[in-house]
Amino acid sequence: MITIVLLGTGNVATHLFNAFQKTESVTVVQVYNRTKKGLLPFKNKTKTTLSFSDLIVADVYIIAIPDDVIVGLSEKIFFKNRLVVHTSGSIAIDKLSSFNRKGVFYPLQSFTKNKTICFKNIPICIEAEQQKDEQTLQLLAKSISEKIHFINSKQRKAVHIAAIFVNNFVNHLYLKATEICNKHQVSFDILKPLILETSQKIVHLSAKESQTGPAKRNDQKVIDTHINYLQDKTQQEIYKLLTQSIQNTYDDKL
Amino acid sequence: MITIVLLGTGNVATHLFNAFQKTESVTVVQVYNRTKKGLLPFKNKTKTTLSFSDLIVADVYIIAIPDDVIVGLSEKIFFKNRLVVHTSGSIAIDKLSSFNRKGVFYPLQSFTKNKTICFKNIPICIEAEQQKDEQTLQLLAKSISEKIHFINSKQRKAVHIAAIFVNNFVNHLYLKATEICNKHQVSFDILKPLILETSQKIVHLSAKESQTGPAKRNDQKVIDTHINYLQDKTQQEIYKLLTQSIQNTYDDKL
Repeated sequence: MITIVLLGTGNVATHLFNAFQKTESVTVVQVYNRTKKGLLPFKNKTKTTLSFSDLIVADVYIIAIPDDVIVGLSEKIFFKNRLVVHTSGSIAIDKLSSFNRKGVFYPLQSFTKNKTICFKNIPICIEAEQQKDEQTLQLLAKSISEKIHFINSKQRKAVHIAAIFVNNFVNHLYLKATEICNKHQVSFDILKPLILETSQKIVHLSAKESQTGPAKRNDQKVIDTHINYLQDKTQQEIYKLLTQSIQNTYDDKL
Repeated sequence: MITIVLLGTGNVATHLFNAFQKTESVTVVQVYNRTKKGLLPFKNKTKTTLSFSDLIVADVYIIAIPDDVIVGLSEKIFFKNRLVVHTSGSIAIDKLSSFNRKGVFYPLQSFTKNKTICFKNIPICIEAEQQKDEQTLQLLAKSISEKIHFINSKQRKAVHIAAIFVNNFVNHLYLKATEICNKHQVSFDILKPLILETSQKIVHLSAKESQTGPAKRNDQKVIDTHINYLQDKTQQEIYKLLTQSIQNTYDDKL
């Protein structure tokens, strides 16, 4: 049995807590948070505390809080030589306090509150300084997911940035498409089958092979008409930059 | 029974031909193409011709060829008062030759050769100048799809541009993510669950609600680190522009 103290009560902490609750090999023995309100949903489910001095003994301390407060919090865990990990894509392992053994347990997914997530298919990127700790994190990851990746801090940053491209930025393009549809009284629903097909295609075919459209065909006449049709400056800038980038990609090939 | 002459043998023409072959209410009675090679896959399946003067009588003539040659071809159909439609997102209905009755039959999907597509969920945008023709196109669309939309030429252009954002541009972001992963020896596979989750989320939640990430949180420290980490100029430009656009979106709300 692996015992966990969870530090934080936000999206990632909550989803991890729920996932560990369903396993037989992991127990969250305590949840820490700096406010009482955050702890409310965990009362009656496990021990909770507002104070670092009340932290109990556990195999792993998982810090799941915003990036800019992770390092500070890691310095407040007054044990020595325990395994303390964070769940962030951005923070290098060596930024954690040196009082304890360091690790990273980064689930690569975009978590939305109140939306249940099946962890089975969520890749978990793990990193530790000691082999024994890597094994513990591997067991922890295996208890909730089938996709375990050993990723160092430099690679993790690349993964995090790539994730921003395929999640944050893609979602923003969905927003731009929503605006364009709304402006012309067309339902955004009309695009949903294409959106699903686009993402499903990439599972089997590379992005380079999947590319279609006027930019790929270098159809400047259609491109100019579109830029002209879009009157919104930001929409035009996004259209121009991505079109130019696609054109450059396929120019290289010639 | 609705009879069709299909003009063109590219991706859209081939996919439409295969879809109509499976219906009981539509028959493709002839396929036209300007080269013999294009007609080869249709031999033994229906009549084929290289010559406009051999075009036979049908209820609908579907022009499925590149945008820049649609109008020219429509002028070579020497009938009078037949229903002639194109399948393009970009060309307004009134650009078609006035010798015949005009219409549009635009399936909103990105077609890849050699990848079978189930038309059932593909939205088909139809437009006609006469009500009778609209009804014919509706029957035609219903024979292969469950999603029929009556969309005028101005709306269709908006749909087409929005489709470029959610398909062509999204796919290009997948390519940028592939480059970032490759550079740091991480498999792009690690992103696939996130890609699928991102597209599936938009089916139930608006893009505005779905947004997460450092740009949404206005986490300038993480943003600057990322821009610095990406050394490629194009990747940096895309990161900056989309981040700025996300920041502006959520600033408006305050």
